[in-house]
Amino acid sequence: MSSGRFQAPTVAIVGATGAVGSVMIEIMNSRETVPWGEVRLIASPRSAGKKIDVRGVEHTVVALSPEAFDGVDIAMFDVPDELSAAWAPVAVERGAVAVDNSGAFRMDPEVPLVVPEVNAHEVNERPKGIIANPNCTTLSMMAALGELNREFGLRELVVSSYQAASGSGQDAIDRLRAEIDAVAGKQLGDRAGDVAEALVAAGLSEETPFKAPLALNVVPWCGSRKEDGWTSEELKVRNESRKILGIPELKVSATCVRVPVVTTHSLAVHATFDREVGVSDAHRVFERASSVVLQDDPDGPDFPTPAGVVGGEPTYVGRVRQAVDFPNTLDFFVCGDNLRKGAALNTYEIAETLASKA
Amino acid sequence: MSSGRFQAPTVAIVGATGAVGSVMIEIMNSRETVPWGEVRLIASPRSAGKKIDVRGVEHTVVALSPEAFDGVDIAMFDVPDELSAAWAPVAVERGAVAVDNSGAFRMDPEVPLVVPEVNAHEVNERPKGIIANPNCTTLSMMAALGELNREFGLRELVVSSYQAASGSGQDAIDRLRAEIDAVAGKQLGDRAGDVAEALVAAGLSEETPFKAPLALNVVPWCGSRKEDGWTSEELKVRNESRKILGIPELKVSATCVRVPVVTTHSLAVHATFDREVGVSDAHRVFERASSVVLQDDPDGPDFPTPAGVVGGEPTYVGRVRQAVDFPNTLDFFVCGDNLRKGAALNTYEIAETLASKA
Repeated sequence: MSSGRFQAPTVAIVGATGAVGSVMIEIMNSRETVPWGEVRLIASPRSAGKKIDVRGVEHTVVALSPEAFDGVDIAMFDVPDELSAAWAPVAVERGAVAVDNSGAFRMDPEVPLVVPEVNAHEVNERPKGIIANPNCTTLSMMAALGELNREFGLRELVVSSYQAASGSGQDAIDRLRAEIDAVAGKQLGDRAGDVAEALVAAGLSEETPFKAPLALNVVPWCGSRKEDGWTSEELKVRNESRKILGIPELKVSATCVRVPVVTTHSLAVHATFDREVGVSDAHRVFERASSVVLQDDPDGPDFPTPAGVVGGEPTYVGRVRQAVDFPNTLDFFVCGDNLRKGAALNTYEIAETLASKA
Repeated sequence: MSSGRFQAPTVAIVGATGAVGSVMIEIMNSRETVPWGEVRLIASPRSAGKKIDVRGVEHTVVALSPEAFDGVDIAMFDVPDELSAAWAPVAVERGAVAVDNSGAFRMDPEVPLVVPEVNAHEVNERPKGIIANPNCTTLSMMAALGELNREFGLRELVVSSYQAASGSGQDAIDRLRAEIDAVAGKQLGDRAGDVAEALVAAGLSEETPFKAPLALNVVPWCGSRKEDGWTSEELKVRNESRKILGIPELKVSATCVRVPVVTTHSLAVHATFDREVGVSDAHRVFERASSVVLQDDPDGPDFPTPAGVVGGEPTYVGRVRQAVDFPNTLDFFVCGDNLRKGAALNTYEIAETLASKA
């Protein structure tokens, strides 16, 4: 990276009025210092003209256009895959580095897929000018796994997720809350279909982002159908973990399940290493990791839950156990805010890393 | 078993007024025919005298006492561990075979632990006069795993649970519903602790059967703390699976998590076999298993959910996938009503099996 390239860089947030974009602005506002010269807020023409406060200064949202990227050094994107696919190259053409939180470029061999705690050394604008931010489910466990991998060498992962509604966006949050309202005050949940009937009776559409009722239920389906019965979310956990950790032969099996939680994904992780690993080894690694908080008091019960840690920036780890029948394996439970470390925060940290390399 | 021992046997339900006892009576009422001569309902002195209809005949609940077992051939117990430990031997002494759904006798080497589809051949009153019914979480996957084991030889299990409130009894169901009422109509779930605050504001006790808020949350803690950070529930999944399936060297790791579902446990299962197993092999096995319902249309999404199948007797299986990086492994998702097959139904089926052996 050419020296001086990013002195007081101009940063853009593309999708500034969305669920993740709003959290990017929150993070920017909560930082003690920021490296940015100018901040530019970009969104759909529908949102253009909207006024948003950034670090005490009123900013006006501008409409997405090629000219919107003129003078931008780093453009953080949180928009749907097809918009990223079309517009990130435009931003690059106009001179920006694009940090993209869609699925459009993650598996492109010419695009680094970055979690700064794990592979900050891959933060590089070349060759394509695009750096990808991982899927929120993968990201929720990556800081913790990166630390363990560095120390013990990761070989296999079996993961089950407990994914929050907000992983599917603001509409999904609204839907879950409407469903909770629809089942409240009723004695439901002990007859097949009674929850679904209550949703219909409350006037909720049968079109749902969850494919089934989510209130008083769990739904073993996240994302879209892919080959051989897998969902897109489950294959992302496999393929992105391999790429971020730099272990192309990592064995991974994931089952992704949506649960009636608003925000913060949880994962039950069964991780197998090159050698024997004990609970105290793992505790030691987690305790010195700056972005991991260990909640695992042996005199507990003490453990993280999504509603207990939502809004936090770190990855929370608890229930660390040495698998009785698998000497090289640890079982543990991870919670991470899917809008923060899972999306906005990691994207922002990639942009900060770029700026610091100036 | 001596021939003629159980001609029109007298059956007792001990704990007849509890959550599981009530379902035992429901099951008895819904059967086309029953083998029983007399049905006796036994409960705590507090419930004695209560009238309950069994197959169109009013029965009066009698108080638990040694004499209550006189003339009883088969006594189905669903009471706390310490009550079973004390009273099952009394029932046996008075001439009954005890079928016990507590944890008191499950790991006793002189007591068979039975899921009729898997090991009906172990239904035998000797040597101790007690037959144990497995823990509801283990049971929810056992019919499906028994079929796969018979065909392909099971070697390893990695399991994550999504357990319903009713696994902790009627109080836990009431608590979950009260929590749902307390969070309804509020925009909660995006600030750490806001759900907990709403429960306190609604006047709910901080003493909860779940150790943490369950509404808009998941709680990675079921049962009591055991050695090395494991919970009682997780060790039961390991130890009981080995005993039921008759595989003492089976490798098992379980992470047990409570979810805001009223009734029906779900499990994400990663099962490894002696040889390669494909999805179509597994489908064939599940399709011919009388107590398993396969919900896994490849043109779906089609999958079981707890709220979709609650109240049903079978084990529902979906999301069957051949683990991409583990050739001998299948990943799948199972739902089973923890009050029915997970408790009352399996206990009842053991009693029916005993009666059929007369």
